[in-house]
Amino acid sequence: MGRRIGVQTVEIVSKPRIISTYNIVGPKEGQGPLAKYFDKILEDDLNGTESFEKAETSLLYTAVSESIKKAKLKETDINFLLAGDLLNQLFSSTFAARELNIPFLGLYGACSTMAESLSVGAMIMEGGFANYVVAATSSHFSAAERQYRLPLEMGSQRAPTAQWTVTGSGAMVLGKKGNFPCVTHVTIGKVKDYGIKDVNNMGVSMAPAAVDTIKQHFMDTGRKPSDYDIIATGDLGKIGRQFTEELLLEYKYDMKGNYIDCGEEIFNSEKQGTNAGGSGCGCSAVVATGYLYKNMLKGKFKRILLVSTGALLSTTSSLQGETIPGIAHAVSIEFGGE
Amino acid sequence: MGRRIGVQTVEIVSKPRIISTYNIVGPKEGQGPLAKYFDKILEDDLNGTESFEKAETSLLYTAVSESIKKAKLKETDINFLLAGDLLNQLFSSTFAARELNIPFLGLYGACSTMAESLSVGAMIMEGGFANYVVAATSSHFSAAERQYRLPLEMGSQRAPTAQWTVTGSGAMVLGKKGNFPCVTHVTIGKVKDYGIKDVNNMGVSMAPAAVDTIKQHFMDTGRKPSDYDIIATGDLGKIGRQFTEELLLEYKYDMKGNYIDCGEEIFNSEKQGTNAGGSGCGCSAVVATGYLYKNMLKGKFKRILLVSTGALLSTTSSLQGETIPGIAHAVSIEFGGE
Repeated sequence: MGRRIGVQTVEIVSKPRIISTYNIVGPKEGQGPLAKYFDKILEDDLNGTESFEKAETSLLYTAVSESIKKAKLKETDINFLLAGDLLNQLFSSTFAARELNIPFLGLYGACSTMAESLSVGAMIMEGGFANYVVAATSSHFSAAERQYRLPLEMGSQRAPTAQWTVTGSGAMVLGKKGNFPCVTHVTIGKVKDYGIKDVNNMGVSMAPAAVDTIKQHFMDTGRKPSDYDIIATGDLGKIGRQFTEELLLEYKYDMKGNYIDCGEEIFNSEKQGTNAGGSGCGCSAVVATGYLYKNMLKGKFKRILLVSTGALLSTTSSLQGETIPGIAHAVSIEFGGE
Repeated sequence: MGRRIGVQTVEIVSKPRIISTYNIVGPKEGQGPLAKYFDKILEDDLNGTESFEKAETSLLYTAVSESIKKAKLKETDINFLLAGDLLNQLFSSTFAARELNIPFLGLYGACSTMAESLSVGAMIMEGGFANYVVAATSSHFSAAERQYRLPLEMGSQRAPTAQWTVTGSGAMVLGKKGNFPCVTHVTIGKVKDYGIKDVNNMGVSMAPAAVDTIKQHFMDTGRKPSDYDIIATGDLGKIGRQFTEELLLEYKYDMKGNYIDCGEEIFNSEKQGTNAGGSGCGCSAVVATGYLYKNMLKGKFKRILLVSTGALLSTTSSLQGETIPGIAHAVSIEFGGE
């Protein structure tokens, strides 16, 4: 039975285990600094399909089905699939779920969806409703560009503060037993909007939400930044990460030394032309299932805080003059070592 | 601690109570046969705002905040808001949540979202993570038309099988105690696609999902249709409802006598020109929080099964030649009487 700690944080007492993960990324992500942590790197970002949206669907399907195989399970062993993506009406998640014989719960938190699906999945496990749950998200650069921004064919110049949507998908299988990294705490965020309107500066739009959730997580748990081996936001990019660090310092939380951002880590932005860094639901998914999870298994990180962040705008809201609301959810993951 | 029953159904042993509901609808819904069950009927479907999307946001905000007031609670008493809507990137839910000081989990299941938010909310309650949860959804005819179909200004003729998106929002507050209707079982559906491509025939597209979930619910629980005072799908409309009834009869489940569809009930389609009936996330939300809930409080219905159904298409998926996947989730609600 879980319990509430403080205002926004809950303790997952039964500690659901992340018994396997799988991720798959596009060619550009495979040329980045985290390449060795990816399970599969595509040569063709269409992945043999006829559209970017169908390609993203195939990535999510692959991540989910391969994560299940890796856990030596069958689709019918999985009680719930919790998934979401950036495309209108969750195109990728829905059409991937159509091919999977698993009860499906669609979630949307923009780029915060990986932490959201993991959080809800862990709470469902704790409630006694599932033996196994899969949490997954995806994104695709070309599908996101044409939905949110401009036709790729225009070849528009990108703002220095702009981020590059990650082509990739990551999935995690949660189970009850075994010696694996486990989910111990979840802090569900509130929607925060500090009035940023610049759709080419998502990192700064989302930073207040990241700050609010991280601060609340520390207040609720009594922990401090140094209690974590690594705190990973995602996907604030370089500028949003700096902003978050500065704002948290104003609340006396010194993040220096163990704070990274998934969007900043996934690309070598100077060499790869990704400006402020990566973004997209797939970004924190592939970094969490790759770099973070695999280094936990190796014993390099014993306790991490994953803080996926989402910019909750739509093209309609921006056209109607709205500012950009953000949200962040934090998940604490621990592993004693294999 | 909840428990799994059969393949897709879980029992919510602690029986979270629906301690209050609130709904708000547009003028057309207020002229329909269920008018007396609505808490507020708008005279102006813009509700004083400058766009249909902002109007929908105001409906959702009103439903959530008034449901909290009706339960004699404050926003800060609510541990989670679970909400979703039809608009791209959950415009209404996000911008309503921005004005509410409540941790937010965005969900998307198209018109199945009311049952999805109620199901996930009940599972979170059972896990011990919340004292109070709000589950809510919304839709708006004019916002949906211009996003999914054609500009209203064109005045296009509607197909006889077409449905009319409900302008409305419904919210439910879940609590632990008190003599109120309570959630006892949840059956989470799988994505089903029988190859329908006609976007003007959503009811038939979703019927296979409704049939699959209802059949599975009966198999898992050992119940039969007559164990419920009322079974309400939503929003299949007249044609989808007939189709569902026929298909279930093939599996020997005779639904005659106690089966209704929220989309069919909300309008007098012959007089109101709504063709096959109502649809939209808001449809099953306002029927469930109005007609169903209020008749439970009166003792007319002691045990109901709410089966919200969603068509998981997007304009992009249809343009790319895809068929229409459907999903349905079933929630069993019981009340002994006041």
